[in-house]
Amino acid sequence: MSGNLRVLVIGGVACGPKAAARLMRLMPEAEVTMIEKGEMVSYGACGLPYYVEGMFSNINALTHTPAGVSRTPEFFRSWKGFQTLTRTEALAINRNDKQVRVRHLESGQEEDLPYDKLVLATGGRPFKPPIPGLDLKNVWFMTHPDDAASLVAEIELQGLKKAVLVGAGFIGLEVAEALINRGLDVTMVEMANQIMPGILDEDIARFAQIHMEDNDVELVLGETVTALEGGDQVDTVVTDKQKIAADFVVIGVGTRPNDDLARAAGLQCNRGIVINEYCQTSDPDIYAGGDCVPNAYIHRQVGDPLYVPLGSTANKHGRVIANHIAGRPTPFSGITCSSVVRVFDYTLGRTGLTERMLRALGVDYEVTTWTGQDIPHYMTGSRLFAIKMLASRRDRKLLGVQVAGMGNGAKRLDVAASVIYFGGTLDQLADIDFGYAPPFGPPIDPLAVCAHVLTNKLDGLAAGMPPLRAKRMMDTQDCLLLDVRIPDETKMEWIPHTDMLHIPLSELRDRVAELPRDRDILTYCKVSMRGYEAQRILNAAGIDRVWFIEGGVAAWPFETAMPGL
Amino acid sequence: MSGNLRVLVIGGVACGPKAAARLMRLMPEAEVTMIEKGEMVSYGACGLPYYVEGMFSNINALTHTPAGVSRTPEFFRSWKGFQTLTRTEALAINRNDKQVRVRHLESGQEEDLPYDKLVLATGGRPFKPPIPGLDLKNVWFMTHPDDAASLVAEIELQGLKKAVLVGAGFIGLEVAEALINRGLDVTMVEMANQIMPGILDEDIARFAQIHMEDNDVELVLGETVTALEGGDQVDTVVTDKQKIAADFVVIGVGTRPNDDLARAAGLQCNRGIVINEYCQTSDPDIYAGGDCVPNAYIHRQVGDPLYVPLGSTANKHGRVIANHIAGRPTPFSGITCSSVVRVFDYTLGRTGLTERMLRALGVDYEVTTWTGQDIPHYMTGSRLFAIKMLASRRDRKLLGVQVAGMGNGAKRLDVAASVIYFGGTLDQLADIDFGYAPPFGPPIDPLAVCAHVLTNKLDGLAAGMPPLRAKRMMDTQDCLLLDVRIPDETKMEWIPHTDMLHIPLSELRDRVAELPRDRDILTYCKVSMRGYEAQRILNAAGIDRVWFIEGGVAAWPFETAMPGL
Repeated sequence: MSGNLRVLVIGGVACGPKAAARLMRLMPEAEVTMIEKGEMVSYGACGLPYYVEGMFSNINALTHTPAGVSRTPEFFRSWKGFQTLTRTEALAINRNDKQVRVRHLESGQEEDLPYDKLVLATGGRPFKPPIPGLDLKNVWFMTHPDDAASLVAEIELQGLKKAVLVGAGFIGLEVAEALINRGLDVTMVEMANQIMPGILDEDIARFAQIHMEDNDVELVLGETVTALEGGDQVDTVVTDKQKIAADFVVIGVGTRPNDDLARAAGLQCNRGIVINEYCQTSDPDIYAGGDCVPNAYIHRQVGDPLYVPLGSTANKHGRVIANHIAGRPTPFSGITCSSVVRVFDYTLGRTGLTERMLRALGVDYEVTTWTGQDIPHYMTGSRLFAIKMLASRRDRKLLGVQVAGMGNGAKRLDVAASVIYFGGTLDQLADIDFGYAPPFGPPIDPLAVCAHVLTNKLDGLAAGMPPLRAKRMMDTQDCLLLDVRIPDETKMEWIPHTDMLHIPLSELRDRVAELPRDRDILTYCKVSMRGYEAQRILNAAGIDRVWFIEGGVAAWPFETAMPGL
Repeated sequence: MSGNLRVLVIGGVACGPKAAARLMRLMPEAEVTMIEKGEMVSYGACGLPYYVEGMFSNINALTHTPAGVSRTPEFFRSWKGFQTLTRTEALAINRNDKQVRVRHLESGQEEDLPYDKLVLATGGRPFKPPIPGLDLKNVWFMTHPDDAASLVAEIELQGLKKAVLVGAGFIGLEVAEALINRGLDVTMVEMANQIMPGILDEDIARFAQIHMEDNDVELVLGETVTALEGGDQVDTVVTDKQKIAADFVVIGVGTRPNDDLARAAGLQCNRGIVINEYCQTSDPDIYAGGDCVPNAYIHRQVGDPLYVPLGSTANKHGRVIANHIAGRPTPFSGITCSSVVRVFDYTLGRTGLTERMLRALGVDYEVTTWTGQDIPHYMTGSRLFAIKMLASRRDRKLLGVQVAGMGNGAKRLDVAASVIYFGGTLDQLADIDFGYAPPFGPPIDPLAVCAHVLTNKLDGLAAGMPPLRAKRMMDTQDCLLLDVRIPDETKMEWIPHTDMLHIPLSELRDRVAELPRDRDILTYCKVSMRGYEAQRILNAAGIDRVWFIEGGVAAWPFETAMPGL
């Protein structure tokens, strides 16, 4: 036995191999062993929906390096210099003797593996709702390459046609697109009244819901699945309101941390294995990272750590763990809750806190939603999207951004994540020198425009009203809806209301006298820019009870009226 | 005469209308007049190359709002509430009496316009090189919609075929693509030894040069145009080394600030009209913004203000000016020298300082170039690109980023601009919670990977050598080139050298004895990740004189060798 540091890594995906490989580069003399219960290691689980879609035909591509080499135990041995034991299950941690009891699943033999430092990268497991029928044939969870491979094989073998997806989170949305692109029928059942609950606010989610329905996904929101029924194989999904026929079912209702091993070893757990900023557990010789741990929110505005399992964060953990073991500590600052997903032609995502979270936290915030093109309108490929932005009333710091639409929202999300990371204000965000050229954006980036609007709201200049609030106002009280578009535009579609007036912005200054002074007025145009101008013009004329509907008709998340309808 | 604030704006593009429109929203009672020498106002000059390409057929689209309304004087009057006088030239500023002498170009009449606050948005003008022949027919500069309109009309009318572009800056590159896409022959002559001199470092520029040549642009670098020749119309471009036949010539060799009016009025000028952070000139009642002013660099690392005329910055100035006049001061922090351009399938750009600038400033920096895919390799549409990153050795702050390639570099540039804005370090950059999903990026974003590599260099772990330096080493001294790719890869293309060895990384640990201990060794693979692993393995075996070639063969900016060649 040598005197070299012995490091044992439990878990062969994302955090585990990242920690092991980085450690070998930092400490070539270390003796690192990684164990994994399954056959495959280091696969890109986030790619599963794209395999289901048929984007690539060999599931093993998910284990390949960019150079096309498969990440096998032999790869890790010869390329990275550490040992990998697959089909090896960790049974128990003996912290006193610093060893882990493992079982080799092929032989059934058990042995104790010693460690100086232990890394728990035990990942997450799909949450299994407490309903009957989960064990029927043709019911899938979607967490391992085996799931995707068997789903695709059975779709082809059995000629499956009608899918019911339970849960409208990331996996559900990506699988929905994949199955539609394969020509199948897709119904998606979600307990909440919106897709992506807990991730997006309702207003932003609504944009994507319309887009998904336009792409033939049947959305069933606000219904709880109570049972899966069938003989040998599933044929019916039962909700609290109806029965839905199904050839097969894919369930994606969340992930739970795999912290059994840690709990049994007496390590502190709370929504996963509790870690400090160096990914150390309550036992300083034991680290944990990836989907088995919760994460601190970046500015500690959120009291409890959040459980947000993501491959990006898992890889960060792996690096932080290796650095700390090697005596080169680099703290992990926490997460900003960034997430992004593509659904058909839409990019949908968020960074920072949602409006729902801010309300729950009692934060005094201001909010706006901007809608517009991602690049100049005269350019081919210019696409509409919406940005919802939240900032603190107290110090004008950016608190959260959500995007939805065909436009390039992913770029703006990553910039917003950076601004939130550095605790930047709206004024700073609008001040950043973004790269400008027509193929990439307008001279004032949409993110800056949105920050301007929100600044104008904080300064009492812009009286923007979010669409959901405007709808409630129109539904529950007297108010006048003022459309300030040019006549040609008003013939295309409009926001329906019992009391509407149309005065083009160009005539508004001269026709202010036509507006009532004793009623609430909501203005709008295509995207709200002219609606805002109209509000300022009416304010200047002494009319105060005026708000513009944020995002205009382009972002109206309810039915619009059309000629002849 | 009323007691309202009178604001006179000279210049009707970008900064001018932005300042006027914002001011009307802040101070509806202000009397704002904007004058413009030309016929058109508020056009998007950056869109000219796309008109030349034929992306849209009505040049007036450049003056349209996103809703399709033309920004005419009447538009500004009725929609925005301020007066616009076109074909009106400002002749002189009388600072004592606070009035501007103007000439109405149609009538020839002159008058004095009074102001309380004056805004100079007089823009820039194309630099005219001191060579004969600029006045020949079929010679264009590309600054005004009239230029683009006449170029397109004459190409069609005269059936022009052979273009010579003088200058390889933004406009040159964009016009080159536009003309190639129209099916014309394009030769580009640039005085410097690279395209985008002053904007990009040579190594990054080289990538794009190869791509432009692949797209049939004939690049003539390091040659100075000394004359344009021809009878009535140009037929020859004369350089210091050759004569090039031309049906027409487009010149884009830089922009100069239009500061004559300001100089004549005794305002302080230095590379344009000198302004403070509120865009006030040396006369506090006179503001200036847009292409007629230089800008401070964001962290004041650069002593003198920089002249970087951009529509994005001009719009920021307009807002800052209006805010200050309206008593709501918001300082402008300066620029980060962000710029981005699309050339065929490449995105090319920069933010922060270049290596050349850092050398000139005497900053102690470290640098690396990373190459790889922008999204996971198993995804359709995954594209290669390179990131060059510069950071301070002293405090690890990010100093500059340049991108080149087909991958989505624009997103990474904007994120980098944000990090530089906030004075962020490499460690912070790598710590940011970027949105992760396979359609948008890998789990560790390329920008973070590049920051990791640079951190590893600063920490003495990674001994990366930039390709230009590696080439020099291979050309001028003894060194061994070690290719660590798998055998299949080495058959595709390789970096040529007189002394090469091939040992796949997977065999390197066992074959270390084959490597010399007394020679310099350069390792490489496809993109340098395995080259780095190889360097670490050799280091661990006590071999110290090892460097990996950054970016590998994928980013080798010189000729590679191919089988049979």
